[in-house]
Amino acid sequence: MFQKYDVIVVGAGHAGCEAAHAAAKMGSKVLLCTMNMNTIAQMSCNPAMGGVAKGQIVREIDALGGMSGIISDRSMIQFRMLNRSKGPAMWSPRTQNDRMRFAEEWRMALEQTPNVDFWQEMVTGILVKDGKVRGVRTGIGIEIESEAVVLTNGTFLNGIIHIGEKQFGGGRTGEAAAKGITEQLVQLGFEAGRMKTGTPPRVDGRSLDYSKMEEQLGDENPEKFSYLDITQPLQNQKSCWITYTNKEVHQTLETGFDRSPMFNGRIQGLGPRYCPSIEDKINRFAERERHQIFVEPEGWNTVEIYVNGFSTSLPEDVQYKALRQIPGFENAKMFRPGYAIEYDFFPPTQLHLTLETQLVENLYFAGQINGTTGYEEAASQGLIAGINASLKVQEKDPFLLQRSDAYIGVLIDDLINKGTEEPYRMFTSRAEFRLLLRQDNADLRLTEKGYQIGLAEEERMQAMQDKKSKTAHLINDLKQKKWTPEEINPSLEALGTATIQEKTTIEKLLKRPQIGIQDLKAIHSEFDQYLSKYSKEVLEQAEIQIKYESYLEKEQQMVQKLSNMENFRIPHKFDYLAITALSAEGRQKLNKIRPETLGQASRISGVSPADLSILTVYLGK
Amino acid sequence: MFQKYDVIVVGAGHAGCEAAHAAAKMGSKVLLCTMNMNTIAQMSCNPAMGGVAKGQIVREIDALGGMSGIISDRSMIQFRMLNRSKGPAMWSPRTQNDRMRFAEEWRMALEQTPNVDFWQEMVTGILVKDGKVRGVRTGIGIEIESEAVVLTNGTFLNGIIHIGEKQFGGGRTGEAAAKGITEQLVQLGFEAGRMKTGTPPRVDGRSLDYSKMEEQLGDENPEKFSYLDITQPLQNQKSCWITYTNKEVHQTLETGFDRSPMFNGRIQGLGPRYCPSIEDKINRFAERERHQIFVEPEGWNTVEIYVNGFSTSLPEDVQYKALRQIPGFENAKMFRPGYAIEYDFFPPTQLHLTLETQLVENLYFAGQINGTTGYEEAASQGLIAGINASLKVQEKDPFLLQRSDAYIGVLIDDLINKGTEEPYRMFTSRAEFRLLLRQDNADLRLTEKGYQIGLAEEERMQAMQDKKSKTAHLINDLKQKKWTPEEINPSLEALGTATIQEKTTIEKLLKRPQIGIQDLKAIHSEFDQYLSKYSKEVLEQAEIQIKYESYLEKEQQMVQKLSNMENFRIPHKFDYLAITALSAEGRQKLNKIRPETLGQASRISGVSPADLSILTVYLGK
Ligand SMILES: Cc1cc2nc3c(=O)[nH]c(=O)nc-3n(C[C@H](O)[C@H](O)[C@H](O)COP(=O)(O)OP(=O)(O)OC[C@H]3O[C@@H](n4cnc5c(N)ncnc54)[C@H](O)[C@@H]3O)c2cc1C
Ligand SMILES: Cc1cc2nc3c(=O)[nH]c(=O)nc-3n(C[C@H](O)[C@H](O)[C@H](O)COP(=O)(O)OP(=O)(O)OC[C@H]3O[C@@H](n4cnc5c(N)ncnc54)[C@H](O)[C@@H]3O)c2cc1C
Repeated sequence: MFQKYDVIVVGAGHAGCEAAHAAAKMGSKVLLCTMNMNTIAQMSCNPAMGGVAKGQIVREIDALGGMSGIISDRSMIQFRMLNRSKGPAMWSPRTQNDRMRFAEEWRMALEQTPNVDFWQEMVTGILVKDGKVRGVRTGIGIEIESEAVVLTNGTFLNGIIHIGEKQFGGGRTGEAAAKGITEQLVQLGFEAGRMKTGTPPRVDGRSLDYSKMEEQLGDENPEKFSYLDITQPLQNQKSCWITYTNKEVHQTLETGFDRSPMFNGRIQGLGPRYCPSIEDKINRFAERERHQIFVEPEGWNTVEIYVNGFSTSLPEDVQYKALRQIPGFENAKMFRPGYAIEYDFFPPTQLHLTLETQLVENLYFAGQINGTTGYEEAASQGLIAGINASLKVQEKDPFLLQRSDAYIGVLIDDLINKGTEEPYRMFTSRAEFRLLLRQDNADLRLTEKGYQIGLAEEERMQAMQDKKSKTAHLINDLKQKKWTPEEINPSLEALGTATIQEKTTIEKLLKRPQIGIQDLKAIHSEFDQYLSKYSKEVLEQAEIQIKYESYLEKEQQMVQKLSNMENFRIPHKFDYLAITALSAEGRQKLNKIRPETLGQASRISGVSPADLSILTVYLGK
Repeated sequence: MFQKYDVIVVGAGHAGCEAAHAAAKMGSKVLLCTMNMNTIAQMSCNPAMGGVAKGQIVREIDALGGMSGIISDRSMIQFRMLNRSKGPAMWSPRTQNDRMRFAEEWRMALEQTPNVDFWQEMVTGILVKDGKVRGVRTGIGIEIESEAVVLTNGTFLNGIIHIGEKQFGGGRTGEAAAKGITEQLVQLGFEAGRMKTGTPPRVDGRSLDYSKMEEQLGDENPEKFSYLDITQPLQNQKSCWITYTNKEVHQTLETGFDRSPMFNGRIQGLGPRYCPSIEDKINRFAERERHQIFVEPEGWNTVEIYVNGFSTSLPEDVQYKALRQIPGFENAKMFRPGYAIEYDFFPPTQLHLTLETQLVENLYFAGQINGTTGYEEAASQGLIAGINASLKVQEKDPFLLQRSDAYIGVLIDDLINKGTEEPYRMFTSRAEFRLLLRQDNADLRLTEKGYQIGLAEEERMQAMQDKKSKTAHLINDLKQKKWTPEEINPSLEALGTATIQEKTTIEKLLKRPQIGIQDLKAIHSEFDQYLSKYSKEVLEQAEIQIKYESYLEKEQQMVQKLSNMENFRIPHKFDYLAITALSAEGRQKLNKIRPETLGQASRISGVSPADLSILTVYLGK
C-alpha cells in the first residue's frame, strides 16, 4: 500500500517537523507519520520561541536551512532581543507566538515541501532485521518500509498526566499516550528512563486586571529570527504582562504539598531543574518572598492566557485558590489546570553524534525522547537527525557540528557524552566558545555547511556571502580610514571619551567601549552617507568583529588547538575492552559510549587524562 | 472553585457551540466544558455546510440569531445555491469550508461572547438530585454546579472506530471516547441505543490528476448564509472536482467485504441510509455501474482533500487499491484511511419538544446524541436546547417551533414523536409546508421570534423589518401600476409570452412563468430606475410572493386549520393510563412520549384518529 520510503519520521512535534523537512529537502522520500494531523507542531507548553541560548539555536537552525526561524517569524506576536545591555554573546532573540498560527504555518510549510508524505496514525513499533531498522508498524497493523526511521515521540511514550492525586494516561492533555515503542526498544537492548515536566494553568484573559501588572512591550525596533528576507519584522506587537506571587500565594500552595505527586513520591521521573514548577520554587528557595509571573497571550485574537512561571501539578483547587491571590488574578477564571507529565526517554549516551542509535543501524532518536526539554532543543536535534538519516541513506558522509561550530554541536556532544539525569536544556554557560557562537553570526558559521549538504538554498547562501563580503569590505575601510584630531575631538569629547593626538583609524576608535558604529554616523555627514550603503546587520557585524577582535582571536586559537585532537577519529569497532591499561571505569564508559573522535572521548566523565594518553598511543596518533 | 452556572454545556461540537452561544446571549452564565479546546467546532467529516434542506436550516439558525451561518460565511471557500433551476422551495445554499478556519472562527466567536466560560476536561457524569440535574462531574473529579445541563456528546459516547477487522476506542480519529455518561443515564432509567456513521479517506491533493475530472466551480454570483451584512460573499472561490467510481473499483471493494465490519456483524449500530458508505452503495445498488465522487479541498491552502462519496470502513489496503482505480486517483496518496464509528445515542422520544429530558428536569440533549446526523441538524438542536435551558432557568415560557415555522420545528417534532431507528437527517420531503419554509424567508419567519427571546439583536430585527416593509411596498406598487398594451406588448413578444389587450398590472404579468422581475427592468428605463431602489433580496422576495401567491395562501390556510388543534396544550402531568377508552397501544405511547400538544399527539405512530377524538373530549376541547 505504501512505497518504500527513504526516511520515516515518527511524530510531528518540533523535532519531527524539522527532521521531515530537512530529509525531504535533501532529496529523500519522507513519510511523516503522526497520531493526529491536526496537532502537527503543537506547542505543548509556552507559546514562545527562543530566549537565552535557545534563541541562538533557532538562528542556527535557520542558518542551516531549517524552518523553525521562519515559522516563528510568521507566527510571532511580539519580538524581544533579551540581554541587549550585555555583550553580543548574550544577545538572545525571543518571540511570543500565536499558538494556532505556529502550528498552521508548520503544517502548510510541510505540505508545500515536495517529498514529504503524511500518514495519520500511531506508530506502535519499528521493524528491525539483522540489526538494521526496516520501517515501522502502526496501530492498525500496517507495516511501512523505509531505509531509515527517526523517532521523535516527545512526551508521549507511556505518558502519565498528574494533577494532585489524580493520574491518567496521556501524551499531552486531551491526547492519548503512545504504547509499544518503549517495550520493544527495551527488548532490543535499549536502556529507558523516566522523566517529567509540567505546564501551568491557562486562564481567561477577560478575567484579569492588567492595571495591577507591569506591561512588557515588545522591542521598539523589533527584529526577527530568519536570515532570509522572506519574513518581515512586526509592525504591531502584543504586550505581555508581569506580576508576582507573594507569601499568601506560597502559603496556599503549601496546603497542597501533601497531595502533590512530586512530593509524595508518585512521580518517579526527574523534572527540569531550570524550568521548575512553582511548588519546586517555593520549596527550594524558601527564602524568596515572591516569584515573577509572565502573563502571556496565546495569540493575536484568543483570550487564552499562558501563566508563565506557574507550572504546577498541585490539586486543581489549590492551583485555583493560589492563582487568585496573585495581583491582577483576583477574579481569574481557569480554562484548564496545570499538570505534570511523566514519560519514557532513552539516555542519549546510546547514540552516535549523528543521533543514530548504536544498537540499531539507521534508527535515529531526536527531541524530548533523548532526555531534553524545550522546543528549540528538540527542533535542532530533529534537524540533525533528519540530515543524517538522509545522508546515510544516500551513502554520504555524516554531518557533525563541533562544539565550536554551534550551540547545536554543544547540545549533541553533551547529550551523547555526558548523558543527562534531568531534562536537559541549553544555557550559554554550557558553551565554552560562546563568544564565537553568537546569534548575529549563525549564518556566517553555518550557512555554507547547510548549503554543501543541499539543505540551505542558493538564496540563503548568497545572502550570507553578501553579508560576509560587505562586512569584510567595511572593516577594511574602517581600518584604512583615519580621522584627524581636528575632525573628531569635539565629537569624542561629547561622547565622553578621550581625545586623540594624532591621525587615528576609525577601527581603533570603534574598539573603545564608549563608541558604537551608530555614534560614528553623527560625526560626519559624509561618513554617515558612506555607512548608509550598509544594512543594519552588516554594520552590527563589523562593529562586533572590530570591538571584540582580540577575544575572538583568542577563542579561535583555542578552537584550533583543540580541534587537532578533537577531529581525530576513532574506528567504529575499536576494541576498548582489549586495552587493559585503561582504567576500569574509563574502559567501561568508552565501550558504552563509543566516542567517534578523541575530542569526544576526552569529555566523557570517567575517562581520565591518563586514559586519554593511553588511547592516543593505541590509536597511533 | 467554580461559581454556580446557569447552564453547563458538555461538548463543543456544532450543537454545543450553538447551545453555549445562545444561552449566554440570552443572559445565562454558561460554562462550556469540552475535552479539548483545540478541537472546538471541529468538522468531524466533510468540510461543508448546508445543501438540500440543510442549507435552509442554517438560514433558520441565522435568522434566530445563532452563529452557524456567520461562521460558515467567514470560513467558506466556495458557495453554491443548489437546485436553482427548480422552484424556490428547493433552493438550497451550500458552502465548502476551510476546516481550520471554521473551527477557529467558532472559537473566536465564543471567546468574544460575554457570559461564556470554558473548561477543558472530559465530563464523566451529571449530578442529579430529586429528579433534577444539578451540574456535572469531570474526569479529575471536580463537581461543577449549575441549574441546567445540555449534553452534546456527538459520536463520543463509548465510541468505537472500525477499519476492516480492526477496532479501537475513540470519539473521532485520534481522539478519546467519552466514558461514564451512558452508564449513568441508563441507571437513571434512560434507554440507550447504538448507531454508526462513517467517513472517507483523506488524500494528498498533490497526488491527484485533475485533468481527468470535471471541475465544479462556485456560483458566478455567490451569495452567503447570513442575513446580516457583517459577512460578505466571496470574491474568489476554490473549485471542487467530480469523478466517478467504475466496475473495477467496485470489484476491488468487494474483495474486502468478508473483512468489512458492516457485513460481518461486528458493527451493531444502524448507519445513515442516506449517507451510505461506498460498500453500502455498491451492495444496495448493484445495478449501478458508477457512483459520483466529489473531490473537495479542505481549505484555502492545505493540500488535504476530502473524498466525498467514498465513505468506507473496509480494510485500509482495499480502500487504497480501490481508490487508485478511480480516474484521477491513479497515483493518489492517502493521509488517513476512512473508518466507521459506532457510538451511543438516546432515542429522542425520551425528550420534551424543548429538548429537555422527560426523566431528569433541566437536563437537555442536543445533536448526534439524539440519533441525528449532520452538522446542521446538530447545530439547530443545540440552538433550541440552549435557548430553552436559558428560558427555563429564567423561569420563562419555553420556545417551541411548529412544523410550519421552520425545518427546525419539523426536525424536533419528528425526533420527539417518531423517534428514529437510523441516523436522522433532514430532507425537504420531511416538511409538509416546504413552500413556506424557504431559504429566502427564514428571516421573515423567525427573526422576530429570535428577537423576542433576546437572542437576535436589534440590528437583525431591523434588517428583517426593513426587508419586510420594502417587500410589501414593492408588491403594493406592482399591484397598482398598470402597463398598456402599447407600452408592453413588444417586450412580451420578445419574451415569448402572450400579448395583452388591456391595461394590466405588473403583478399580473409577474405571475406568468416566462416573466421574472429582472425581465421587467429591460422594459422601461423609468421602471428599471424605480426597481434599482430595492435590494436583490427584496426583489426576489416580492417576485416569489407574487408568483406563488395562491400556493402560499393554500399552505397558509392548511397551517391555520391544523394549528387550532396543534396548539392545544396537554397538561404536563396528564394521566393517560387512567383513560381506559384509549387503545392499549395509544395509551402506552402517549404515556411514554407525553406530547405537549394535541398536534404532537396526532403525529405519534400508534395513536389512532379514534384515540385522538377521545383525548380531545377528555381535554374538554
Ligand atoms: C506538559 C508539558 C510541559 C512542558 N513544559 C516545558 C517547559 O516548561 N519548558 C520547556 O522548555 N519545555 C517544556 N515542555 C517540553 C516541550 O514541549 C518539548 O520539549 C518539545 O515539544 C519536544 O518536542 P518533540 O518534537 O520532541 O516532541 P513533541 O512536541 O512532544 O511532539 C511529539 C509528536 O509525536 C507524536 N507522536 C508521539 N508518539 C507517536 C507515535 N507512537 N506515533 C505517531 N506519532 C507519535 C505526537 O502526536 C506529537 O505530534 C513541556 C511539554 C509538555 C507536554
Ligand atoms: C467519522 C464520522 C463520520 C461522519 N460522517 C457524516 C456524514 O457522512 N454525514 C453527516 O451528515 N454527518 C456525518 N457525521 C456526523 C457529524 O459529524 C455530526 O452529526 C456532528 O458533528 C454532530 O455534532 P455534535 O455537536 O452533536 O457532536 P460532535 O461534533 O461530535 O461534537 C461533540 C463534542 O463534544 C465533546 N465531548 C464529547 N463527550 C464529551 C465529554 N464527556 N466531556 C467533554 N466533552 C465531550 C467532543 O470533544 C466534541 O467537541 C460524521 C461524524 C463522524 C465522527
